[in-house]
Amino acid sequence: MYSFKNDYSEGAHPRIIETLLRTNLEQCEGYGKDTYCEEAEKLIKNKINNDSVNIHFISGGTQTNLIAISAFLRPHEGVISANTGHIFVNEAGSIEATGHKVIPVDVVDGKLRREDILSVLSKFTNEHVVKPKLVYISNSTEIGTIYKQSELEELSKVCRENKLLLFMDGARLGSALSCRENDLTLENISKLTDAFYIGGTKNGALLGEALVICNKDLKEDFRYHLKQKGAMLAKGRLLGIQFIELFKDNLFFEIGKHENDMADLLRDGISNLGYEFLVDSPSNQIFPIFDNYIIRELEKSYGFNIWEKINKEKTSIRLVTSFATKKETCLEFIKALSELTK
Amino acid sequence: MYSFKNDYSEGAHPRIIETLLRTNLEQCEGYGKDTYCEEAEKLIKNKINNDSVNIHFISGGTQTNLIAISAFLRPHEGVISANTGHIFVNEAGSIEATGHKVIPVDVVDGKLRREDILSVLSKFTNEHVVKPKLVYISNSTEIGTIYKQSELEELSKVCRENKLLLFMDGARLGSALSCRENDLTLENISKLTDAFYIGGTKNGALLGEALVICNKDLKEDFRYHLKQKGAMLAKGRLLGIQFIELFKDNLFFEIGKHENDMADLLRDGISNLGYEFLVDSPSNQIFPIFDNYIIRELEKSYGFNIWEKINKEKTSIRLVTSFATKKETCLEFIKALSELTK
Amino acid sequence: MYSFKNDYSEGAHPRIIETLLRTNLEQCEGYGKDTYCEEAEKLIKNKINNDSVNIHFISGGTQTNLIAISAFLRPHEGVISANTGHIFVNEAGSIEATGHKVIPVDVVDGKLRREDILSVLSKFTNEHVVKPKLVYISNSTEIGTIYKQSELEELSKVCRENKLLLFMDGARLGSALSCRENDLTLENISKLTDAFYIGGTKNGALLGEALVICNKDLKEDFRYHLKQKGAMLAKGRLLGIQFIELFKDNLFFEIGKHENDMADLLRDGISNLGYEFLVDSPSNQIFPIFDNYIIRELEKSYGFNIWEKINKEKTSIRLVTSFATKKETCLEFIKALSELTK
Amino acid sequence: MYSFKNDYSEGAHPRIIETLLRTNLEQCEGYGKDTYCEEAEKLIKNKINNDSVNIHFISGGTQTNLIAISAFLRPHEGVISANTGHIFVNEAGSIEATGHKVIPVDVVDGKLRREDILSVLSKFTNEHVVKPKLVYISNSTEIGTIYKQSELEELSKVCRENKLLLFMDGARLGSALSCRENDLTLENISKLTDAFYIGGTKNGALLGEALVICNKDLKEDFRYHLKQKGAMLAKGRLLGIQFIELFKDNLFFEIGKHENDMADLLRDGISNLGYEFLVDSPSNQIFPIFDNYIIRELEKSYGFNIWEKINKEKTSIRLVTSFATKKETCLEFIKALSELTK
Repeated sequence: MYSFKNDYSEGAHPRIIETLLRTNLEQCEGYGKDTYCEEAEKLIKNKINNDSVNIHFISGGTQTNLIAISAFLRPHEGVISANTGHIFVNEAGSIEATGHKVIPVDVVDGKLRREDILSVLSKFTNEHVVKPKLVYISNSTEIGTIYKQSELEELSKVCRENKLLLFMDGARLGSALSCRENDLTLENISKLTDAFYIGGTKNGALLGEALVICNKDLKEDFRYHLKQKGAMLAKGRLLGIQFIELFKDNLFFEIGKHENDMADLLRDGISNLGYEFLVDSPSNQIFPIFDNYIIRELEKSYGFNIWEKINKEKTSIRLVTSFATKKETCLEFIKALSELTK
Repeated sequence: MYSFKNDYSEGAHPRIIETLLRTNLEQCEGYGKDTYCEEAEKLIKNKINNDSVNIHFISGGTQTNLIAISAFLRPHEGVISANTGHIFVNEAGSIEATGHKVIPVDVVDGKLRREDILSVLSKFTNEHVVKPKLVYISNSTEIGTIYKQSELEELSKVCRENKLLLFMDGARLGSALSCRENDLTLENISKLTDAFYIGGTKNGALLGEALVICNKDLKEDFRYHLKQKGAMLAKGRLLGIQFIELFKDNLFFEIGKHENDMADLLRDGISNLGYEFLVDSPSNQIFPIFDNYIIRELEKSYGFNIWEKINKEKTSIRLVTSFATKKETCLEFIKALSELTK
Repeated sequence: MYSFKNDYSEGAHPRIIETLLRTNLEQCEGYGKDTYCEEAEKLIKNKINNDSVNIHFISGGTQTNLIAISAFLRPHEGVISANTGHIFVNEAGSIEATGHKVIPVDVVDGKLRREDILSVLSKFTNEHVVKPKLVYISNSTEIGTIYKQSELEELSKVCRENKLLLFMDGARLGSALSCRENDLTLENISKLTDAFYIGGTKNGALLGEALVICNKDLKEDFRYHLKQKGAMLAKGRLLGIQFIELFKDNLFFEIGKHENDMADLLRDGISNLGYEFLVDSPSNQIFPIFDNYIIRELEKSYGFNIWEKINKEKTSIRLVTSFATKKETCLEFIKALSELTK
Repeated sequence: MYSFKNDYSEGAHPRIIETLLRTNLEQCEGYGKDTYCEEAEKLIKNKINNDSVNIHFISGGTQTNLIAISAFLRPHEGVISANTGHIFVNEAGSIEATGHKVIPVDVVDGKLRREDILSVLSKFTNEHVVKPKLVYISNSTEIGTIYKQSELEELSKVCRENKLLLFMDGARLGSALSCRENDLTLENISKLTDAFYIGGTKNGALLGEALVICNKDLKEDFRYHLKQKGAMLAKGRLLGIQFIELFKDNLFFEIGKHENDMADLLRDGISNLGYEFLVDSPSNQIFPIFDNYIIRELEKSYGFNIWEKINKEKTSIRLVTSFATKKETCLEFIKALSELTK
């Protein structure tokens, strides 16, 4: 049984786990003030080509989202998110638990656009409703689509014109930035957003996200928020060491590319067999539509998530590839599907 | 330069890091629903000899405290803590950030007693003040003292008589339960408290605490709180695997005993040289009092925290031992001190 | 210029203001522990014919909603509301500010139904989303519609079957219970909901809502929440005295009936002139649809809210009647409209 | 039985209740946007002699404190308060309920001084503790003492030097500013604090406090916080009309002076009979020390609060005077006491 359920089924990329082993007994300062975290910060700033950003390492995505967003907002301010946004649908009300309303916008492809923002602003105009202040986007989105540079520029512009903060959830940024259709860079993102995070957990790390704060007004006192929300690991080295390994060369992007290559193999194979997809997603999540009886057969050998019912006979599923997904496994899946396809 | 600053300067106990390496590429369910977490839960229940408790694995101590306490309380309820309690002095207002007042009680040895609880209850009697509802204690305490069984029984009794919940912060429970003066067991604790946690981070794990919920009224829906506070690791296996290693035999207690043995070496050596201590702490934190010029000399070769000024000439420092502290290092410290002592 | 903008444009019903004057210099206990509040509580219990409920007097509707809902819920629980619900659209994120997500349901007539609840429950099934726990309804709704007894029974049933709390916002309960189509009573409501409030502010009081807690599990310690949220008036008598006046005879219902009678006058007059309404609302808010040029003319002599654009030429407006609205004013409005209608 | 329990036992000053009656049926805009609130704001600005401040009318003191403080702070910031401060001891954890720790400082006379602030700052220096950001003081204090101008200047200076906000709770500001020892003015206060409030409830209003925001950085969006916390009265006129009456001439200060005159009568009479006081309080709260048997006798005819046990035989009680306290009543009390005094 092989699982395509997600990109966090395995542990860490072998290079990461080996470095953890190698450095294990060295003594370090606690709470992220160690030399590994410092070095990781430098390496990431280098890749971003922007020395002025602040970087904080945090264990997971939900935690990063809730700490950043609650630190950036005053109590009366709200967050605009696509109705597919992870903070809106999959984080157990974590943003609301910090006191802030999430204003959902219906979208078709997981992405927010200029008109969506303006539409919200036109309705939220006085103190009887929250004040929209931060725009939350994900790249890649929760359904595998990505933002092109021109799209991000447009969003960034409408945010700045309206004094809104732009925050990008990069849980799957490695896959997004490494896929064929991508034309964004970390440097672009650092100039167009107020903050974003570079996801480690879904890109080969055991755990860990690197929050990048670009807007200088948002930097002050940030470590207080980490501590107050319980996010400051005593052995912060654990996060620093992993991000060094991801960014001291190109491992972060190589893992993203590998994930995408494996997804391409699956996508092309499935497509060649005549199947359609729920959405055109160029990254490491794909959503093929199969007849229900085919899904039942596939489930005997593969793990995956049932995504959305299309009609009585057909359903879309989600297949996700990881740093550890092997070419042979993908080819076997296609072969199995091919045999099920008359 | 060797650091006695704390018990989280190194990575993990070698057996733990090796097991992480060995299991690294296995596929697991996410979010703590994997077989490793299940197995770890079973092993801990076995050691507690109590199958009815619920166990949740959480990354760190502050996070465990804030999630448990905020999950257990209604909005108007407050927490009683020693004025030395970690939640009162060292967690950046994390409990208050979840909406709950911490009511400090002045204590001399880090421990709460029956009279302390009754004194608070006598003052907090109507709706113009918060309603005291949970008693927070640490074992070992922040200054290395421990609770004897009779003391915990007394506290438990006064709590139950007054419908107060008793919660034990066990960040250093391994050291506490393994020291010579201890007469408590995990089983006792599970019967006398409503919830407690077994600290991994300061007892040989890379990260991780095992929250044990004993009171059945507190169990329902607890995973929601983990998720909402950003504490549910996608690769929850990371915590499960470590706790298996700590509890599949006696490693957890062996590490605690090793920490204590190293502290004993230091304590006895320092004492034999005629020095006094700020507090009589039997566990892995000791607080010797030295002349300031001796501290300045020691600082050239050793890292430690300056704890409290005693008078113009003397100051107490804190020395902490870890799973990785070596006998030779302790003996060298004593030798260096001996040479500084005329 | 006469304003039909809302039912809180004037001060209090003359009987109320006179009683405040008459009792002004008597000395009372503070914080709602005075004999007036006690007497008011008794009178309301009498009208409800249910001595077991608890009653608390609170200054306004938003405050009542946020205190009740946050007192009733645990941190991970959410609220189901119609997308027109006051807590969802008009209270500045006050529920979210207490940490709870509001889950909106699209409805057409302001009312929630059994299927709406079941649909939410079918989607919110694990700890990655909030746990729906409380159903918020308004009667009359924000668009003037009311719940019939059979409808409330059905909602109550689905709530109890699914361990959901049912809470009714009665800001305009006086008008709702006094309108011709109504078949509900306070007694029914007290048996079918877990808590509800009886609105004073929009029914002739200067300020004040009477929160009625029916479910005994929700009663404990409620006054703590009042105090903690800043809702306990030092001169609580101000609320008690007003509710005595409203409930010592039938003034509360007479005011509701007067509001409805005035709305009926407007509704019938407008209808007779051939105009349609956005929604069929039997209570003291009506939503006629006029040509834009007629609205511009009416605005010269009358205040009202523009509600919703129907098409290029037509818009619906909102007219609200109060305890102080006079018959002549309504007839004059109809006359003015009639003259504008060719 | 006459009650000296507090200054909110009666309703409103007769001029206020009469104006409410006179204006009762006028139609006004809702939510504090009426012309009465505007006029009241102008009148108060005039008295402050400072046109740049912002003024908001809020129902009560706890509500004002919690809204202002939570609006002014970021999540990681805490409040410094005397250990006698109302927010620390008598508001049911309302500040903590908004997420902020209150840091108590032991004081003897209810007042904070420069050294107190510096002492807190010396201990709260990193992200493992909250960041002190706002200093909360009361004038008069909870034990009737007042701040002299030089004292407020000193506090203001230390706050500004350390980027701390200074907030004055003026629940009893009328009495404070009208007492013989006072040398402060509203204008001084507006220059020395970042915000303060002018208490109406304890100075002749039915309810209502006027929050004055002096620091321009704190003004933005404040009405959102009012709404979100449920503090925006639909009939906001109720507050505006009262403050017009208090400030259109000198009624506010006359009431304060009357309260103080009555307290002077009591204080002088008690003192002349040879009794001592717990604290030297020049305003409308006094704390005489009596033998317990005298207290038991007085209780038969007078209401008051037992304040603090002095020794086995003696206890201090609190006597508070209000706008409605009569000279004869005070003289009768002294006479009764005189008869009890052998």
